[in-house]
Amino acid sequence: MTYTVQIKVMPHKELLDPQGKAVMGGLENLGLTGVEDVRVGKHITLQINADSPEKAKEMAEEASRKLLSNSVMEYFEVSVN
Amino acid sequence: MTYTVQIKVMPHKELLDPQGKAVMGGLENLGLTGVEDVRVGKHITLQINADSPEKAKEMAEEASRKLLSNSVMEYFEVSVN
Repeated sequence: MTYTVQIKVMPHKELLDPQGKAVMGGLENLGLTGVEDVRVGKHITLQINADSPEKAKEMAEEASRKLLSNSVMEYFEVSVN
Repeated sequence: MTYTVQIKVMPHKELLDPQGKAVMGGLENLGLTGVEDVRVGKHITLQINADSPEKAKEMAEEASRKLLSNSVMEYFEVSVN
């Protein structure tokens, strides 16, 4: 069966996020006040053919570790739906 | 109160996603077979100071429309948690 797996890859909370800071400046220039912090990361959607949702999640975690995220700077979260 | 708002910005389903295709090639080279499709987009987390979750969501949708997404090529989904 084919499962849709969502992967969120974000910069570690303790690291500066220059792209997020730039977006925050842009929002202020647009008059959108009230935004206190912005973090920008990646969102990856995989269609995985696997025997069970657990197998699909395992494959997505392996892909995240090996290719999609850099563990020095980023963390990832995987969810199957 | 401060609300955490998650925004997912993805390429429209009917458009080609060259970055996704490149990731799929990379996964195959790593021996991860079973992945049938890959789409790569952005994930943005906002901390928004607002009176209610509804107001926070409205602000995030305005930010997505005006700055964070390009409606010609991308769609976005906003969720408050």
